[in-house]
Amino acid sequence: MSVMEHSRWLAPAWPADGAPMSEHPPGLVTLVGAGPGDPELLTLKAVKALQAAKLVLYDHLVSPAVLDFLPPDADRVYVGKESSRHTLPQASIIELMLRLARSGRPVLRLKGGDGYIFGRGGEEAQALAAAGIPFTVVPGLTAAQGAAASVGIPLTHRDHACALVLATGHTRDERGLDMDWPMLARPRQTVVLYMGVNNLPQICRQLIAHGLQADTPAALVEKATLPDERCITGTLADLPQLALTHGVKPPALIMVGGVVSLRAQLMPLAEGSTAIPTRARIAA
Amino acid sequence: MSVMEHSRWLAPAWPADGAPMSEHPPGLVTLVGAGPGDPELLTLKAVKALQAAKLVLYDHLVSPAVLDFLPPDADRVYVGKESSRHTLPQASIIELMLRLARSGRPVLRLKGGDGYIFGRGGEEAQALAAAGIPFTVVPGLTAAQGAAASVGIPLTHRDHACALVLATGHTRDERGLDMDWPMLARPRQTVVLYMGVNNLPQICRQLIAHGLQADTPAALVEKATLPDERCITGTLADLPQLALTHGVKPPALIMVGGVVSLRAQLMPLAEGSTAIPTRARIAA
Repeated sequence: MSVMEHSRWLAPAWPADGAPMSEHPPGLVTLVGAGPGDPELLTLKAVKALQAAKLVLYDHLVSPAVLDFLPPDADRVYVGKESSRHTLPQASIIELMLRLARSGRPVLRLKGGDGYIFGRGGEEAQALAAAGIPFTVVPGLTAAQGAAASVGIPLTHRDHACALVLATGHTRDERGLDMDWPMLARPRQTVVLYMGVNNLPQICRQLIAHGLQADTPAALVEKATLPDERCITGTLADLPQLALTHGVKPPALIMVGGVVSLRAQLMPLAEGSTAIPTRARIAA
Repeated sequence: MSVMEHSRWLAPAWPADGAPMSEHPPGLVTLVGAGPGDPELLTLKAVKALQAAKLVLYDHLVSPAVLDFLPPDADRVYVGKESSRHTLPQASIIELMLRLARSGRPVLRLKGGDGYIFGRGGEEAQALAAAGIPFTVVPGLTAAQGAAASVGIPLTHRDHACALVLATGHTRDERGLDMDWPMLARPRQTVVLYMGVNNLPQICRQLIAHGLQADTPAALVEKATLPDERCITGTLADLPQLALTHGVKPPALIMVGGVVSLRAQLMPLAEGSTAIPTRARIAA
């Protein structure tokens, strides 16, 4: 038995709403990271969970090709969030997940990327634990990893970056960007920002204001690992304008640091071609 | 065709050593991340590459169960590095990889974790690009992700960490630890250090000296996702002594930050049991 197959069983407890326990034991909830988009980047464990699923709660960032692994008769519930337009608020997603699990059915909770990296998987796992519902967690590749391999930007490199920082470019509350600029602007590291495209001008300005050179290489990767992936490279100084010019939209990652300069050498070329990049390198 | 299947083909060039081109075109090199250890955490793409492999160069941190996916007649070359005892220096690994690819055979270059996160995959990709050898990169789960899911420590959480920092706890040269302590000691982030167990006392001391509270939750995860995985939790103040007491050895991750405290609630319990953890939580 793999160590990842252990599920969490707690002693029966009263549900949080004070209602009496149902006669069923709660269903196992499997929190699965669906990876960056390319279905070939699912883990074996995730594929097995998908193939065995009867009831799936899935997010906006789960690509349709991933859902193709589900059995045709699996019940699919879309609870996804699109940037500012949430289909269900997080509290309602958790409430629905708990209710379904308490009915005794096993639940597959499917999230883009890795549920324990900006996926709010920790919050959902806490809710399950507090409710006494057994759960297990399957990690997935996070978007930064898919983008790195796909566009040719290593996340670390001994000549450029001895650390990798993943952060979000949006905020918890409405007070504007509340990011740790002094940390993000340290030299010799790679910074990948999730969900920051709409704040790109402010992000680039703040990174420069806090010490990064204006000519620090920076890239945008839109729809990483999907067939219509785009990568735009530039610098902190010109990336906001390039993003406007090319109409970059979420979901897109912002990558900052010396490693971005390696793309000129490492970007994948079309299979069978001799020198033409698959996806045009839009700007150097 | 998946976007990840694009390989790199460059125009023929003289090899770096000045010898004339061989009559064969060079073989494709596939740089594959083997993930944290549990073979179920391989990606589908990695499994396909393994199953089709004829010649494999693999590292120390690739688990034997991963190699079981190779065809029985595949040639296996161990080039692994164990902490300070390198089987082959990096330059020799690269030289061997180039020589084998130039003979015309496809080469599977298999690395633990994700080759673009502390895997020196960037350096190997650069060498391939410079030599005009086609290559493709398959990302893998990095150890921090496997550990997080397996032991119950989310890497981000809105109440504890708005950023995730991955760094190495050993150094490039012999001058001792040359790490960015002010960055690593920032509040409200999760820090995961690879290859740092032998420097644990110095690491904890420096993090405290640069501003983290001595009672900041911290954990060691040894052999993440493997059947003999262990997780020891404590604080920056007591983790070095706990590591000695329990004889923690590389490969092990150091995890620092408020998220570590969530393990008490989120650690996986044995399947079918009611309250007993699978792997004893050695210290709180």
